[in-house]
Amino acid sequence: MSTTNNVNGTASNEVLNSPFLKAIVQQVRGQDIYGVYKTWADDLLLKPYIVSKQKKREIPVDGDVDLMTKSRILTFYRGIAACIEQETGLMSQVVVDIGHEGFGWALVFSGRLLLTTRTIRDAHRFGFDSLEKLAEEGEKLIAKGVELAKTYPEVGKL
Amino acid sequence: MSTTNNVNGTASNEVLNSPFLKAIVQQVRGQDIYGVYKTWADDLLLKPYIVSKQKKREIPVDGDVDLMTKSRILTFYRGIAACIEQETGLMSQVVVDIGHEGFGWALVFSGRLLLTTRTIRDAHRFGFDSLEKLAEEGEKLIAKGVELAKTYPEVGKL
Repeated sequence: MSTTNNVNGTASNEVLNSPFLKAIVQQVRGQDIYGVYKTWADDLLLKPYIVSKQKKREIPVDGDVDLMTKSRILTFYRGIAACIEQETGLMSQVVVDIGHEGFGWALVFSGRLLLTTRTIRDAHRFGFDSLEKLAEEGEKLIAKGVELAKTYPEVGKL
Repeated sequence: MSTTNNVNGTASNEVLNSPFLKAIVQQVRGQDIYGVYKTWADDLLLKPYIVSKQKKREIPVDGDVDLMTKSRILTFYRGIAACIEQETGLMSQVVVDIGHEGFGWALVFSGRLLLTTRTIRDAHRFGFDSLEKLAEEGEKLIAKGVELAKTYPEVGKL
């Protein structure tokens, strides 16, 4: 509901130290085979993840979800997977399945254990109020995944 | 390798008693909101699942996987989920994610437990030599899923 969202991407350095945000940045840079983002600052790379409530309302939710949004969602969950791997050593797979209406699932799993299960709604409008919110959301999912991996290590290694 | 595939859909009654084939038929009939298949025999409904090796070779694997094939794959895994539920009482979700090149994942899960994990290749050519092969393949996946559900009931109920 707040209108003081950090939509211009000028974040404090502090939040950029979030391991999750670093993981997203690393995913993006890892896919940057033409070196386009080489000179871009981290917060600029993360900027598309910040979508204000106002802007969300302006995005229509009918029709296909555009490819860049899909790729942003996939990168979000790949960041989750990378952070869980860092803490637990479990290699995981990421499956994001979004239908033409913006509904679907995001799953991160290792062996037979689901580390993250998320239903997706209104994928067209995927985004967060601020980098802080993005980091917070990611770290919540990572903590849950790490907890599951530690509670059921046997299932994660199947 | 055999060329005596049962491609004309005239199956013996015996294989049609397979609980898995019955589950697929039930899925198809359950989606038949216009009653189009009401008068169709079970083996006729299952016929599209039978694709001979020869016919597979003729299906190009480039471009998008057509919607009917996708829906057939989804119904296959929904049949698996239904049979596992019948034996274990675990309600499960089915996620099938196929990219434009026919590669992807098919997942059946309950709680945090993956009952079925399958990578999909050449989805365009999804099909089986015979109803017997279809039933066999399904029952193998069901048996594995049931075994996992019984070994890790706690994870399946998370």
